[in-house]
Amino acid sequence: MSGHETGGEPTDWESWSQSWKHHHLLGLELHSAEEIQSILDLAELFAQASQEGRNRLTLLRGFTVANLFFENSTRTRNSFSLAAKRLGADTVEFSSAGSSTSKGETFIDTAKTIEAMGVDAVVVRHATPGTPHLLAKHLSCSVLNAGDGPHEHPTQGLLDILTIRQHRGSLKGLTVGLIGDIEHSRTARSNIWGLQKLGAHVIVCGPATLVSRRWKQLGVETSHRLDDILPRCDVLNLLRIQFERQTMRPFPSVHEYGLLYAMTKERLARSKPDVLILAPGPINRGVELTSEVADGHHSVILHQVANGISIRMAVLWLLLGRRVASESFARG
Amino acid sequence: MSGHETGGEPTDWESWSQSWKHHHLLGLELHSAEEIQSILDLAELFAQASQEGRNRLTLLRGFTVANLFFENSTRTRNSFSLAAKRLGADTVEFSSAGSSTSKGETFIDTAKTIEAMGVDAVVVRHATPGTPHLLAKHLSCSVLNAGDGPHEHPTQGLLDILTIRQHRGSLKGLTVGLIGDIEHSRTARSNIWGLQKLGAHVIVCGPATLVSRRWKQLGVETSHRLDDILPRCDVLNLLRIQFERQTMRPFPSVHEYGLLYAMTKERLARSKPDVLILAPGPINRGVELTSEVADGHHSVILHQVANGISIRMAVLWLLLGRRVASESFARG
Amino acid sequence: MSGHETGGEPTDWESWSQSWKHHHLLGLELHSAEEIQSILDLAELFAQASQEGRNRLTLLRGFTVANLFFENSTRTRNSFSLAAKRLGADTVEFSSAGSSTSKGETFIDTAKTIEAMGVDAVVVRHATPGTPHLLAKHLSCSVLNAGDGPHEHPTQGLLDILTIRQHRGSLKGLTVGLIGDIEHSRTARSNIWGLQKLGAHVIVCGPATLVSRRWKQLGVETSHRLDDILPRCDVLNLLRIQFERQTMRPFPSVHEYGLLYAMTKERLARSKPDVLILAPGPINRGVELTSEVADGHHSVILHQVANGISIRMAVLWLLLGRRVASESFARG
Repeated sequence: MSGHETGGEPTDWESWSQSWKHHHLLGLELHSAEEIQSILDLAELFAQASQEGRNRLTLLRGFTVANLFFENSTRTRNSFSLAAKRLGADTVEFSSAGSSTSKGETFIDTAKTIEAMGVDAVVVRHATPGTPHLLAKHLSCSVLNAGDGPHEHPTQGLLDILTIRQHRGSLKGLTVGLIGDIEHSRTARSNIWGLQKLGAHVIVCGPATLVSRRWKQLGVETSHRLDDILPRCDVLNLLRIQFERQTMRPFPSVHEYGLLYAMTKERLARSKPDVLILAPGPINRGVELTSEVADGHHSVILHQVANGISIRMAVLWLLLGRRVASESFARG
Repeated sequence: MSGHETGGEPTDWESWSQSWKHHHLLGLELHSAEEIQSILDLAELFAQASQEGRNRLTLLRGFTVANLFFENSTRTRNSFSLAAKRLGADTVEFSSAGSSTSKGETFIDTAKTIEAMGVDAVVVRHATPGTPHLLAKHLSCSVLNAGDGPHEHPTQGLLDILTIRQHRGSLKGLTVGLIGDIEHSRTARSNIWGLQKLGAHVIVCGPATLVSRRWKQLGVETSHRLDDILPRCDVLNLLRIQFERQTMRPFPSVHEYGLLYAMTKERLARSKPDVLILAPGPINRGVELTSEVADGHHSVILHQVANGISIRMAVLWLLLGRRVASESFARG
Repeated sequence: MSGHETGGEPTDWESWSQSWKHHHLLGLELHSAEEIQSILDLAELFAQASQEGRNRLTLLRGFTVANLFFENSTRTRNSFSLAAKRLGADTVEFSSAGSSTSKGETFIDTAKTIEAMGVDAVVVRHATPGTPHLLAKHLSCSVLNAGDGPHEHPTQGLLDILTIRQHRGSLKGLTVGLIGDIEHSRTARSNIWGLQKLGAHVIVCGPATLVSRRWKQLGVETSHRLDDILPRCDVLNLLRIQFERQTMRPFPSVHEYGLLYAMTKERLARSKPDVLILAPGPINRGVELTSEVADGHHSVILHQVANGISIRMAVLWLLLGRRVASESFARG
């Protein structure tokens, strides 16, 4: 019954989804350390299955995953889409342009219509925080948050954390610096929740306009000077300056930002020798980091992208897999 | 040879398509009552097959269905696309934006080019009435009308009728009110042809600017006052006000329209106790109907959406299935 | 192990890809006559396999092909996409609009991100000549040139040549006229390289503004008068006037262009009796050729479209197929 068609000891995929208790993935704030570790472990198994053989899995054959993106996205949308296809699911794409919401339909009606087409999971991105949570109340299918305004982006948090775990073995006791535009970053929030639950110490660092003191309420350390914290960080996650999400100019110029916060060869020399450089991308070369750093051997940026597929396969399977088992059972 | 992989007595899908006599689906005007019933019956079988097991059918494996939409659409396009995929077909999407017609190519040349890529069916939506009929003359593959201006939208008519039949058992003797923007509605025309052929009495009702007396030529009753016909209707199909298709203002304001034609809790109280509320969507809440009615237990709006998939699977199989059988035969 | 599921002697697809030596398809300039003949031969086998049975091949099951188009395209993009699907591969679509490049990411970073998602081949179209060559240097996956500015469009050249070969048996000794906008035509360049390698004599013909004398450096004959060369041509390939690629007006008016270069019934009467009319499309009826010629029995325009699928299947299989074999071997 396993869709894993390659040789070797077959993975018991079904037991993974049967022990999973949630119907939606809305944010890492809502999940325990054990649950997060489970997602990471399963993602590793999917990555391994992909490497061993090219055969597409058929675990979610007959399932349909809908991408409902109300903000532009190439990488996240395609990453979810590829993850679904590699599990054997069909995918269907909705975007705000040309959709019924432009004909006066409400957002909830659009989503309910999509669900009524027999969709099993809706992956949603929206500029308004809490949109996925609202959908989850109105839909009976699974809802996956692919970014809700500056709130959460749980699969991005998970893939960042998986990338760190792969290179360091464990998150416990690591110091992770999240650098830059914390204020507008859903990636920051998802990282903070996940990293702290797994035992890492988190420092958020950026200009005072983008890193206020109230972040301490989340349990993190705050800093306005990258050079101060540099020697202590095992990992630096260089968040993208969200030019499109800012309503005022939070710093005088890109040049001034770079002077204080850009990761350069010089700053790398003052970092821990095995420091990991992450960036959720798309990166602005010369803004958050120089090309030397982006392309250097500390950078694990492309590992993050690859891990994005595995993480999304894991999450889709955990949310939907239980239904495969129960339906097989119902059919006898 | 059946693609139906679930347990139970296998459906003899091939016999369905072998007895079907048409190569295109252009409009319900062109089909007999028996043919319409056949489509509805087959749609029910596909709905049942989907419910019994998640397994995707493979009946149209190796076939390609092209969506050729020259007007915006989310729900119809995706519904056709999902229907094709659930039969195992590949799909390919063409839209007017960025296509070769914007480089000076004629519409027929675009369609012939698509066909030459080995496409088996073209699903076409176009603002000009008769476009699918024109294509059918020039292409040898099957053409499915997904809406040609205000003319016909046969699969919408079929899914509306299927939804009524599911809740009432038969169309015979029912009184169905089509309310609102009859003038610009292809859904109205397809409903009128289909409903009357299956023995229903049809009333078209709306402001005089949107419901002229000449509609009587199609055999329907006309009315300008919803309150007059309300007590006699078994079904109310609340057509969308096609703001985007109107060249003049056909009524003073949305507010005034609502006073006379919106379906409200008060009007529901004066309707038959088991009245069915349909709306082809996307709905304008507060215009054609209030939220209480849209979300109330008389509403079967989401059943319509679900039936849309089954209807389109049925139509695709009827049009294309014969070729599966004949090619299997040719191959020995 | 063969994905060819229909009856008859199974084709040994693997031996084809094992003898192929290249990792990318960047332009016909880079390939030998033998290699070009191999692609054409394999394309014929795929065309035959498609005709014998509808069954989709599964040769590239588990592979992912990404379309990365930075210029509008319907036919080429969909042709590549359908070719990939008919080999069993997954496809993923990227376009410039709404992609990360609009968020400040560099082109190479976009491509590397796509590759990191586990993509096996990138099909790229870009306005800048040499873009696919640049990508090939930075990516480890296969790169296929789907048109780089006015430079090359190798699969278009291949499908044109295949179409001629199908109707004439061989290219050797044929005289092929490329008519029209040579200056801006990547199709012209790919045709010139391919046709001459296979032994055809090529004449490029158009107004002096679009056909300069330096074309003779490529070994072709040049002409400014279609009527002069008409009686000698076995094939006329009527290139599209690339209105969108011209920065100045190269001829007084479309009418004047037509007087000198449009293929008409009258010119057909003065051509060889078995002359073949090709046009890479989308055609401008009444500009490069009249409707009588486009729809007449000399025209093989739709054969070109059909051959486009087979050529792209052949190229994808030659580039990627070797990895199927090596991985099967690695897995034991």
